[in-house]
Amino acid sequence: MPANPLNTDDFDGQLYDLRMSEKARPLFEAVKKFIAQEVEPMSEEFFRLGENREDRWSWAPGQLELLDGVKAKAKEQGLWNFFLPDAETGEGLSNLDYAYIAVELGKNRLASESLNCSAPDTGNMEVLERVGTPEQKKQWLEPLLNGEIRSCFGMTEPHMASSDARNISTQAVLDGDEWVINGEKYYISGAGDPRCKVMICMVKTNPDAAPHQQQSQILVPMDTPGLEIVGPMKVFGNDDAPHGHMHIRLKDVRVPKENVLLGEGRGFEISQLRLGPGRIHHCMRSIGAAEKALQMMVERGLSREAFGKPLVALGGNTEIISRARIEIEAMRMMVLRAAKAMDLMGNAEARVWVSAVKAMVPERVCQIIDQAIQMHGATGVSQWTPLPDMYHSQRTLRLADGPDEVHHMVVGRAEIARYAPYDVSDEHVDVGRN
Amino acid sequence: MPANPLNTDDFDGQLYDLRMSEKARPLFEAVKKFIAQEVEPMSEEFFRLGENREDRWSWAPGQLELLDGVKAKAKEQGLWNFFLPDAETGEGLSNLDYAYIAVELGKNRLASESLNCSAPDTGNMEVLERVGTPEQKKQWLEPLLNGEIRSCFGMTEPHMASSDARNISTQAVLDGDEWVINGEKYYISGAGDPRCKVMICMVKTNPDAAPHQQQSQILVPMDTPGLEIVGPMKVFGNDDAPHGHMHIRLKDVRVPKENVLLGEGRGFEISQLRLGPGRIHHCMRSIGAAEKALQMMVERGLSREAFGKPLVALGGNTEIISRARIEIEAMRMMVLRAAKAMDLMGNAEARVWVSAVKAMVPERVCQIIDQAIQMHGATGVSQWTPLPDMYHSQRTLRLADGPDEVHHMVVGRAEIARYAPYDVSDEHVDVGRN
Amino acid sequence: MPANPLNTDDFDGQLYDLRMSEKARPLFEAVKKFIAQEVEPMSEEFFRLGENREDRWSWAPGQLELLDGVKAKAKEQGLWNFFLPDAETGEGLSNLDYAYIAVELGKNRLASESLNCSAPDTGNMEVLERVGTPEQKKQWLEPLLNGEIRSCFGMTEPHMASSDARNISTQAVLDGDEWVINGEKYYISGAGDPRCKVMICMVKTNPDAAPHQQQSQILVPMDTPGLEIVGPMKVFGNDDAPHGHMHIRLKDVRVPKENVLLGEGRGFEISQLRLGPGRIHHCMRSIGAAEKALQMMVERGLSREAFGKPLVALGGNTEIISRARIEIEAMRMMVLRAAKAMDLMGNAEARVWVSAVKAMVPERVCQIIDQAIQMHGATGVSQWTPLPDMYHSQRTLRLADGPDEVHHMVVGRAEIARYAPYDVSDEHVDVGRN
Amino acid sequence: MPANPLNTDDFDGQLYDLRMSEKARPLFEAVKKFIAQEVEPMSEEFFRLGENREDRWSWAPGQLELLDGVKAKAKEQGLWNFFLPDAETGEGLSNLDYAYIAVELGKNRLASESLNCSAPDTGNMEVLERVGTPEQKKQWLEPLLNGEIRSCFGMTEPHMASSDARNISTQAVLDGDEWVINGEKYYISGAGDPRCKVMICMVKTNPDAAPHQQQSQILVPMDTPGLEIVGPMKVFGNDDAPHGHMHIRLKDVRVPKENVLLGEGRGFEISQLRLGPGRIHHCMRSIGAAEKALQMMVERGLSREAFGKPLVALGGNTEIISRARIEIEAMRMMVLRAAKAMDLMGNAEARVWVSAVKAMVPERVCQIIDQAIQMHGATGVSQWTPLPDMYHSQRTLRLADGPDEVHHMVVGRAEIARYAPYDVSDEHVDVGRN
Repeated sequence: MPANPLNTDDFDGQLYDLRMSEKARPLFEAVKKFIAQEVEPMSEEFFRLGENREDRWSWAPGQLELLDGVKAKAKEQGLWNFFLPDAETGEGLSNLDYAYIAVELGKNRLASESLNCSAPDTGNMEVLERVGTPEQKKQWLEPLLNGEIRSCFGMTEPHMASSDARNISTQAVLDGDEWVINGEKYYISGAGDPRCKVMICMVKTNPDAAPHQQQSQILVPMDTPGLEIVGPMKVFGNDDAPHGHMHIRLKDVRVPKENVLLGEGRGFEISQLRLGPGRIHHCMRSIGAAEKALQMMVERGLSREAFGKPLVALGGNTEIISRARIEIEAMRMMVLRAAKAMDLMGNAEARVWVSAVKAMVPERVCQIIDQAIQMHGATGVSQWTPLPDMYHSQRTLRLADGPDEVHHMVVGRAEIARYAPYDVSDEHVDVGRN
Repeated sequence: MPANPLNTDDFDGQLYDLRMSEKARPLFEAVKKFIAQEVEPMSEEFFRLGENREDRWSWAPGQLELLDGVKAKAKEQGLWNFFLPDAETGEGLSNLDYAYIAVELGKNRLASESLNCSAPDTGNMEVLERVGTPEQKKQWLEPLLNGEIRSCFGMTEPHMASSDARNISTQAVLDGDEWVINGEKYYISGAGDPRCKVMICMVKTNPDAAPHQQQSQILVPMDTPGLEIVGPMKVFGNDDAPHGHMHIRLKDVRVPKENVLLGEGRGFEISQLRLGPGRIHHCMRSIGAAEKALQMMVERGLSREAFGKPLVALGGNTEIISRARIEIEAMRMMVLRAAKAMDLMGNAEARVWVSAVKAMVPERVCQIIDQAIQMHGATGVSQWTPLPDMYHSQRTLRLADGPDEVHHMVVGRAEIARYAPYDVSDEHVDVGRN
Repeated sequence: MPANPLNTDDFDGQLYDLRMSEKARPLFEAVKKFIAQEVEPMSEEFFRLGENREDRWSWAPGQLELLDGVKAKAKEQGLWNFFLPDAETGEGLSNLDYAYIAVELGKNRLASESLNCSAPDTGNMEVLERVGTPEQKKQWLEPLLNGEIRSCFGMTEPHMASSDARNISTQAVLDGDEWVINGEKYYISGAGDPRCKVMICMVKTNPDAAPHQQQSQILVPMDTPGLEIVGPMKVFGNDDAPHGHMHIRLKDVRVPKENVLLGEGRGFEISQLRLGPGRIHHCMRSIGAAEKALQMMVERGLSREAFGKPLVALGGNTEIISRARIEIEAMRMMVLRAAKAMDLMGNAEARVWVSAVKAMVPERVCQIIDQAIQMHGATGVSQWTPLPDMYHSQRTLRLADGPDEVHHMVVGRAEIARYAPYDVSDEHVDVGRN
Repeated sequence: MPANPLNTDDFDGQLYDLRMSEKARPLFEAVKKFIAQEVEPMSEEFFRLGENREDRWSWAPGQLELLDGVKAKAKEQGLWNFFLPDAETGEGLSNLDYAYIAVELGKNRLASESLNCSAPDTGNMEVLERVGTPEQKKQWLEPLLNGEIRSCFGMTEPHMASSDARNISTQAVLDGDEWVINGEKYYISGAGDPRCKVMICMVKTNPDAAPHQQQSQILVPMDTPGLEIVGPMKVFGNDDAPHGHMHIRLKDVRVPKENVLLGEGRGFEISQLRLGPGRIHHCMRSIGAAEKALQMMVERGLSREAFGKPLVALGGNTEIISRARIEIEAMRMMVLRAAKAMDLMGNAEARVWVSAVKAMVPERVCQIIDQAIQMHGATGVSQWTPLPDMYHSQRTLRLADGPDEVHHMVVGRAEIARYAPYDVSDEHVDVGRN
C-alpha cells in the first residue's frame, strides 16, 4: 500500500518540523517593520486620493507616485521579489518561510504590491523564470521583476465548466510565423489596471492531441490588435476597479510564433510549475481573514447586551467562538504542513497537500465570517464593517483556482489510489492559475 | 402536559387542511393574470427609465406615472389592499389564502406595490386599521389605503442589540402637548422614497415601568424638523435606492401628544398585532427564491460538461439537488401550516408557528442559493446571474424581523414550557417589524 | 417543463388536504383504545415471560398463548388486516389514514402484530393479494391473513452492493418442473421466528435478459431441504431474537415451477407493488421515535442542573430543542403528503415522494436521538434509557429498504428530468423490500 | 490583548516543532516491534481462551498467565511504565513523544496493559507519584508500577449532571480517625476486573467551603465493607466484561483518615495534575480508529459495484473520502501540538489546548466511522465488521472526561478572555478523569 500521501513517514519526520527557519527570521521581522512604517501610512493617503477619481478604471493623480516611492524603498532595502522560492533571482525562501510572511502581507491591501509579491504577477514571474527564453525574460520578466509593469493570466472562459481544466475553447492557430488567437476569457484579474502590459493566455493549439497535450500558453501583449476588454466582471456586485476582473474577447489576435512558452502542447506542464506559493499565500491570507472575523465576533459580542447578558454568553455563541478558534488552528497547521511538503517534495509531488488546504480553508473561513456577521446583527451586512467584503472574497475563493469539488476529487482519488490503481485519466483536474 | 404548540389536535384536525379556499381561487387567478398582463410589461419600462436617473434617491421622470397607471387599474379591478386579513377594509382573505397569493407577488419586484400590498406599508396599515383613532385613520390610513403616500417603521437602532426587542434607546418625553423625541434609528426600509410621508417610531416613554411597558409607538411625519436622514445603510454593498434602508437621526423632534398609537407604554402590545401576514409573506417569497435557485442550479448543471459528463451527474451534485427539493417542499408545508394556524388561533397564539418558519426558512434558502452559485462557477458570483442579489436578500432576512437565534429561543422555550413552567420574562423577544 | 414531481397542482390542490378522513376516525379511535386496553397489559407479561427463556430462538411457554388471545380479540372486533389499502380483503384504508394509525401502532412493540399489521408480512400479503394465483393465495395468503403463520422476504445478499437492486446473485434454474435455487441471503428479518413458514425470495432467473427482466420472485417454504439458516445477523450487537435478521444459505433448494410469482423475469414489476404502506409506516414510526427522544431530551434537561442552571438553558441547548421540534413537524408534514400522493396517484407514480421521505426522515431522526443521548450524559448510552436501541434502529433504517443515497438519486433525477431527458437506465434503483 | 492561547509566539516558535525526539525513536521502534512480535500472537490466544468462560466477570483459566508472561518480558526489556512524563519513576518521555507511541498502543487492545500503560491506572499512578505520601506510594503505587494490581477512579455519579465537575454528591465525613463515605458512582471503568484493588474516589468533604474547595480525593480499597458493586453499566448494550464500567454504591464505607490524597478540600487541585497524557492518549487512539474506518471505507467502496461502478466513484463518495482524510490530518496536527504545548507549558497552562482536541476529535471521528458504516450497507451494522464497536467507543468519548459542550466552553471562554475579563467562577469545568 502506498503511503498516505498526506502523512508520509519519509523525510525522517521532517514534515513535522513547521518552524520558521532561522535564516528567514530577519526578513520576516524586516517585512513586518516595513509594512508598519512605510506601507501603512502610505496606504491611507493612497486610498483617500483614489476615492473620487474621475475614471474608475484609472489611477488618480498622485496615487502611483506614492506607491512607486514605497516600492523604491523596498527594493533598496532588499525587501523585494522574495516570493520566488529557491530561485536564482529571488530570495531563496522556502515555501514554509514564505507562508509565515504571507500572513503579514495579508494584513494590508498594498503590502504585497509594495514588495513586488502580488498576484497574478508572482505566478507569471515564476513561470517566466523557469521556462522563459532569454528573449522572453528580457522583454517581460525583467520589467516585472523591476515592478515597472504588471501582468495577467488568461485561463477561465465564460462558456466552459472551468472545473475541468482541459475545457479550453480559445483557439490559437499557426499562420506562418504568427499565432492567430480567437476566443473569450473572463475573470481575468488585474487586466483592468492600465499598467498591465501582458497576458499569459491558455489556448488550445492541438485539438487532436491527447487530452493533456492540446493546450499551450502564449504571451499576448495587452495592446495587441483584436484583444478587447469587453468590461468588468463583478464579484457579488463589486468590480474591484481599477485592478478589475475583466471580460476579454480575442478576435484574430496575432502574436509572433516565439511567444509560446516552453513549446506547443505543453500548457499543462507549465501549469504544474504554477502550483508554487500562490495557493499557500491565498490560504494564509484566508486564515488571516478568519482571525479578523473571530476578533470582530468576540468584540461585538462583548459590546452588546441582550436579555441582561453580553451576546457572547447567549445561546450557543460561546461554542461558536470555540469552534471558530479550533478550526483556525487546524487550518493553520494544515497550511504550514502543505508548505513544508512543497519544500521537501517539490510542487508537483505535494499537490495533494495543496489541494487539501485549498478544499478545506475557504469553505470554513466563509462560515466563520458568516457567524461574525450574525453576531453583528444588521450592522454585519452594512458598510460599517468589512465583513461583507471579506465574505465575498472568501466565497469567491471557493470557485477560483479550481472549485472545492475539484480539490476534493484530487484528495479523494489520491486516497483511493493507495488501495487500488485508479483510472487517472482525469488527474490533471487541478491546474494552477494563481 | 400542554399540547405540542406546533402540532395541536384541537380544531378537529383542521390544521391539516392546507388547501386554498374556493372563495380565494378567483382572486388568486385574477392576481396571476394581472401580474402577467399589466405588471410585467410595465416593469421592464419602469426599470429602464430608472437606469440613468440623475439623482439615485429620486424617481426618474415617467417612472411614477407608469406605476400609478397600473395601480389605478388594479384598484378598479378590485385587486387592491387584499393583504388585510379579515379586516373590514380589506378583502377578508385568510392568511393561508394570502400565502398562496404571496408566491405570485414574489415573482415580480413591482407586483406587491402595484396591488398596494407592499411592506412596510402593509404592517403599518394593519396597525392603523386596528388601533388608530378616527383622526389618525383619516390622516394616514386613508392615503395609505389609496396608495397615495408611503410609510416606514422605525424600530432598529445602531447601538443596541436588536435581538432583544426591549433594547430601545430612542427616548420620547412629554413636554406640554408634545412628545420630544431624541435618538437614532437605522435600516429604516422605504424611508429613502420621496413618497414616504410618515414613520411609526418605536420609542421609550416610560423607562421606569415594567420591561414590556416602557415603549410606545408614535406617528412621526417625515418632514418634522429635527428628523434627519443621515444616509443610506447598505446591504452587502447595495443601497436599494431610492427605496433605501436609511440611517435616521431624531434630534428634539416634536410631534403632538395624540400621535401616540393606542396609548403610552403600549408599544409592545401593538407589536403583537403586527405579526400578521408580513412574515408569512416573506417566507413564501423566500421559498420562491429557493425554487428559482434550484431551477438555475439544474439548468446550469445540465448546460455545462466536465470530465465528459454534465455537472449535475458529477460528484454529489444529484444529491445536492435532491436535498434542495426536499427542503423546499418541507418549508412550503411548514409555511402553509403556520398561515393556517394564524387563521385558526389568531396571530398571538400562533406566534410559535411563525417563529418556527422564520427560523427555518431563510437559513436553508441561503444554503440552496449558495449551492446554486457553486454550480455556476465564477459566473455564479457575477452580474450575469441574480444569484448574488438573491443571496444578499436571504442572508439579510436571517437578521431582520428578529435574528434566527431569537426565533429558535421562542420555539425552544415553548417546547420546554410543555414540561415545566418556564421563566417567561423574556417572552416578548419577538416583536413584529415587518 | 414537467410539473415538480413533489408539488403538483393537479388534483385541484387535494394534495394539500392532509386531514384524516371522517370514515377512518372510528377505526383510529378503536385502535388507540385497543392498544391501551388490550395490547399494553399483555405486552408487559409477554416480555417478562420471554426474559429468561432457555432457547433465545424459541418463544417461552405461554408467550404465544398470550399474543394469540389478543389477536383473537382484535379479529373479533374487526381491528385486523387494515394495512391493505383499498384491497378487497382489507379495510380499504387510504394511505393517509393508515399513516395516522401507524403513529399509534408505533407506540407499542406488539401493536402491529396484535392487529396483523406487522412487517414483513404486510408487504408479502400485499403482493400475494395482488399477483398470487388462487392456489398461492389458498396456501399462503389465507394463513397469513388469519395470523396463523408468519413469513419473510429474501432480498439482500452479503456479497453484493444492495444499493443497486439488480445486484442479485442468487440463481434459480428450471430443472424440469422445479426451480433449483442456489445462493446466499442475509438480514432476512423475521426468519428466526419458528412460526415463519415461507420466504418470498428474489432470484436471478434470466441472466441474459434486459437488466430489469432478469429477476423473479419465488415462494420458498422455510422447511425446504437445502435452505439453511446459517445464523443471526446482528444490528449494532443486537440479534433481535427470536424474530431475528437471519443469514440464510440456499443450496440446491428445489421448489415447484408454479411457485414463481406473476411470472419469470417479473421480479422488478412485483417490487413496484411493494412500495405500499410499508415505508410510510416506517417513517411515521421514526417520527414517533423522534418525538419520544425530544421529550426525553427536554425532561432530562430540566431535571439536571450544572453551573446553576437546568441543562436546557445552557449553551445551545434551547436551540437544539427548537431545531428538533421544527424538524419533526417538517417531517410529519412530508410523510403525510407522501401518503396522500400515494392515494391520489398510485404507488408507482408517487415513488419520488416516498423516496423523499425515506431519504429525509431516518437521517434526521438519528440526529435528534443523538442529541438526546448527549443531554443525558453517560446515562444516555446506558441500559437505563431506550436511547441506544432507538439510535440503532433508526441508523439501520438509513441502510434498509434502499440506502439514503439511492433515494436521493431517485429524487434528484426526477428533479433533473423536469429540464432534460435523463438517462433512466438506472431508474429502478429503488425496489421495495419493506 | 493576551496572546491567542492556542497559538502563542512564545517559546521561539518551538510549538511548531512537532517531530518525535531522537531520544524517543529507539523506544518507539522497540514498542512497535514488541507489539508485533509478542503482544499480537498472545492476544489471539488470550481472547480465544476468554470466549466461553463460565463467569463473564472473571478471567478464564490461562488468560492471566499468558498476559503476565508478556508483561514480564516487557519489564525485562525496559518497555514498561513509560507513560509517566518526565517522572523519576518513568521513562521521562515527553507528551509529544508519548503521543507518537500512543498511536501504536492503540492498534492492539492488549498493548497498553502489556506495557503497563493502560487507563485508568496511568492517571492513578501519575497522581500517586506526584502527591502520594511515602506510605501511599508503598501500598498502592508500587504494586501498580509493578503491574501486580489494577485500580479505578470514582468520579461520575448517576444523579448529577457531570458536565459540572463540582456536582459531587458522594459525601465523606470525618468520624474520629476515619472517613465515612456515602454515595453512588457509576461508569467506574475497570472496577469489574477481579484484579482491581483500589479506587481513587472523588467525594465532597467540605460542603461549606468555596465551590472548588469542597471536594477531596480519597483512596478506597475495593474490599472495604460497604462498597458494593451494584452491577455493570452498559455502553450501547455492551458491558465490556470483565473490565467493566461498574455501578458502585458506597454505604458507610470507612477508610483511615490518612487515605485522603494531598489534603482535605484539594480534590480539584489534584484533578489539574491528572490532565496529563490521558486525553492525548485517547485522542491519538481516536485518530487511529478514524484511520481504520477510512481504510475500511475505501476498501469496501472498491470491492463492491453498483450501477456499473465501484462505490467509491458513486455520488459524493470520493468527496466523503477526501473530507475524512483532511479531517484526520487536521486532527493529528492538533493533537501533536497539544502534546507539545503540555511539554512546553505544563499541563495546567496547556489545558485549553487539550480541551480543543477533546472537543474536536471524538465528534469528527464518530462521523467518519458513521460514513464507513454507510459505505458497507447492512454489513456495516453487523458483527462482521468492528465498525459498530468503534462507533460506540467514540460516541461514548464525547461524554467521557467532560462532554464536548464543556470543552467548547473552556476554549470559547479562553478566547473571549483575550478581550475582556471573563467571569471565571466556572473555570474548573474541566476536571481530569482519564
